[in-house]
Amino acid sequence: MSDTVAPPPKIVLVRPQLGENIGKAARAMLNFGLTEMRIVSPRDGWPNESALPAASGADSVIENAQLFDTVAEAVSDCSHVYATTVRKRGVTKPVMTPSEASASIHALNAPSAILFGPERSGLDADDVALSGTIVTVPVNPDFSSLNLAQAVILLAYEWSKGVELAVPTETESLPPASQFELEGLITHLETALEPTGYFFPPDRAPTTRRNLRTVITKPGWTAPDISALRGVVSSLTKRR
Amino acid sequence: MSDTVAPPPKIVLVRPQLGENIGKAARAMLNFGLTEMRIVSPRDGWPNESALPAASGADSVIENAQLFDTVAEAVSDCSHVYATTVRKRGVTKPVMTPSEASASIHALNAPSAILFGPERSGLDADDVALSGTIVTVPVNPDFSSLNLAQAVILLAYEWSKGVELAVPTETESLPPASQFELEGLITHLETALEPTGYFFPPDRAPTTRRNLRTVITKPGWTAPDISALRGVVSSLTKRR
Repeated sequence: MSDTVAPPPKIVLVRPQLGENIGKAARAMLNFGLTEMRIVSPRDGWPNESALPAASGADSVIENAQLFDTVAEAVSDCSHVYATTVRKRGVTKPVMTPSEASASIHALNAPSAILFGPERSGLDADDVALSGTIVTVPVNPDFSSLNLAQAVILLAYEWSKGVELAVPTETESLPPASQFELEGLITHLETALEPTGYFFPPDRAPTTRRNLRTVITKPGWTAPDISALRGVVSSLTKRR
Repeated sequence: MSDTVAPPPKIVLVRPQLGENIGKAARAMLNFGLTEMRIVSPRDGWPNESALPAASGADSVIENAQLFDTVAEAVSDCSHVYATTVRKRGVTKPVMTPSEASASIHALNAPSAILFGPERSGLDADDVALSGTIVTVPVNPDFSSLNLAQAVILLAYEWSKGVELAVPTETESLPPASQFELEGLITHLETALEPTGYFFPPDRAPTTRRNLRTVITKPGWTAPDISALRGVVSSLTKRR
């Protein structure tokens, strides 16, 4: 593999409930060569003694797993964030199959993360809002019952199929902005909008914020794009 | 689906050990629309009371599972038999990936079966000898630890991809905004930025405008996105 092959995606387990399922997800990952697990606010804390036995030997994945308080922190160094979820009504983000998401990860060739929600409920609207792309496994509409490790293994398997085929893209275009830079823009914009009444009335504010975030996270902006946009916001606000 | 679609493969569990794993295999199958399970000489007999709870609702697969004494009997009505196994030395049968096996099943359009071996040992030489084709999941050579239900789900998933060649593209996402809407946003933004000194000094203005336009036209925004952004600009400027 050359140096220009896309970095493997980070697997981000968001608020997982059972340590056993974290272990099974680790096993699923390592079968297809994925090693970077990130865990956001696990219900039963971390480390979890049930995880290692369920990993069936994928100890290194568990031992190197990183713990985060929020999804935003877990993906702050990633340029592309994929949310695995059943398709939601009214969501205006691109929806990909696991195969398309894999192709996208290999083609974009920048740090990426795939989010998986809690066992029972899946990712919530805020988790999805933070992601640029939705990944949906096309399951039987009459029986949709994928567990966490199964969802992980299907994504890991599809990713692994692209590893040998990946053509070093050696792109001349700039890499996409990191999630950190994007968050900086969003915070900047929200701060600028706060005194203008944009978020009034207060009971609509969470929805307004989520919609704004969705619009802003959609583009594949580069770091210079983000700088330019922040310049715009600064300029628009400085004379107030 | 037309009448000429290939019959779904039968999933044949050969000498499975745990009822729980039979249940999990049923769940894996039904997620991707496979319903015909055949069980050959299960270690703990059949029915097995651990199977149904592990099936998580895929009861019909368990209840309709057929029991056989030998692999030969289990596949006697099948024209094509695929053995899932790690590649064996000295085997002179065609070896396919799950994706290739799925393509083959759909193309051959005749009754087929996919064999899965016991949890610990996998299929033995006689089972493989009876099969026309070997299917091998390309796993991490340093960590190959697929369990029974995971092997089943990967094959079922690949099979299902051939059923609906396209994911239901009946997409709920909105079409991209028109160029007219985009121009409206750019003009709005330029007008708002003009008095702020954003385009100063004048000799740099054409470049600055071009860069701004590049940033703004990059995203695949929809009309509502454009409205939202124009609301942002209005809000940022209205108190000046």
